[in-house]
Amino acid sequence: MKRVNLLAGGPIEQWAPELQKPTQITGQWVTADRGTWRLLQKGIVPTVAVGDFDSLTPAERQQVQEQVGDIRAVQAEKDETDTQLALSIALEELAADQVVIYGATGGRLDHFLANLFMPLEERFKPFLNRLEMRDSQNTIRFYLPGDYQIAKEVDKKYLAFIPLTPTTDLNLIDEKYPLHHFDTEVPISWASNEFIGATGRFNFKTGIVAVIQSTD
Amino acid sequence: MKRVNLLAGGPIEQWAPELQKPTQITGQWVTADRGTWRLLQKGIVPTVAVGDFDSLTPAERQQVQEQVGDIRAVQAEKDETDTQLALSIALEELAADQVVIYGATGGRLDHFLANLFMPLEERFKPFLNRLEMRDSQNTIRFYLPGDYQIAKEVDKKYLAFIPLTPTTDLNLIDEKYPLHHFDTEVPISWASNEFIGATGRFNFKTGIVAVIQSTD
Repeated sequence: MKRVNLLAGGPIEQWAPELQKPTQITGQWVTADRGTWRLLQKGIVPTVAVGDFDSLTPAERQQVQEQVGDIRAVQAEKDETDTQLALSIALEELAADQVVIYGATGGRLDHFLANLFMPLEERFKPFLNRLEMRDSQNTIRFYLPGDYQIAKEVDKKYLAFIPLTPTTDLNLIDEKYPLHHFDTEVPISWASNEFIGATGRFNFKTGIVAVIQSTD
Repeated sequence: MKRVNLLAGGPIEQWAPELQKPTQITGQWVTADRGTWRLLQKGIVPTVAVGDFDSLTPAERQQVQEQVGDIRAVQAEKDETDTQLALSIALEELAADQVVIYGATGGRLDHFLANLFMPLEERFKPFLNRLEMRDSQNTIRFYLPGDYQIAKEVDKKYLAFIPLTPTTDLNLIDEKYPLHHFDTEVPISWASNEFIGATGRFNFKTGIVAVIQSTD
């Protein structure tokens, strides 16, 4: 199981708690945008950094260029964000079996939504079950049609099922609030559900469903 | 033009700046969940409050009950959130021409996404052009197919176009980064665009598009 961590440019106040001591997190790092400088400040050198770093001071930029061996810039004509390129590097070049994405939430909502919808792209869809996004209150995972049993995170209370594309026959089987044969043409967030025990089962026939575990 | 303001339960740190002095905001207020108590603390009594207020202390709850003349609770069997009920009250009972929704972002992402996707529901779709959601860095508005010219907000720099449902023939006409005849089957956030002048034009043929103006 090869884990790669991706740090995007979202605000530090929304970071997942484990980023207080990122040296205790296993796996390589790929960074996008402001994430690069912030990770260096934490004492970790990313394997690959994506960005032009034009929001940094000249001194900071020089430090990034001296410390990071592999720096990439998005090709302007590709309509791609730094985070999208960082994710494709994690999956294709570093062959990650698991990509934990930090700094993808908070602040500008156009950025957050670009990150949330990233797994829906054709090029990432085959890998979407390898992705998770974590912040101070939420963990987001993504599912293609199938039958699943997922595990409760001990520090999270709430559970949400969020069809992001037209979805058919969604069943929440043993959650606190069950749902049967639910179809939707538009995205919807079934929020504030809860696990009853340590795991919960759900299934659906077509579509893509995000699952969020969260805490107040 | 009848404006109604809706305050949902999202974290205060993400509130739009005008909520520092909400008495200067015109229009009636409808509140959901924790928004009720917070608005009372700001010296405003909402016309209608939705919630069971079980997160308040008994003393706080009593104060809500004494001050607010019209308190409603969601019917458990309706699978509705406090914010959804508050929005339908604003539109149907108070006949709002404009609903400005505060406290809809930040914190738990299942709540934010439930709010973001609310205008896609059949019952709200006829009114979606009346809604806007505001927080400390973002303003979100919603559009049905058509041809639009929108105005730049002076305190915002970035502009994003976000098809939330399958969308055809999206054209960004005079924005910094144009887009021509774009079709998508899945939600996507075209982030980090900008106005060139004081207004920007766009159009599309089918789908629902959210537009976000934001600032770093």
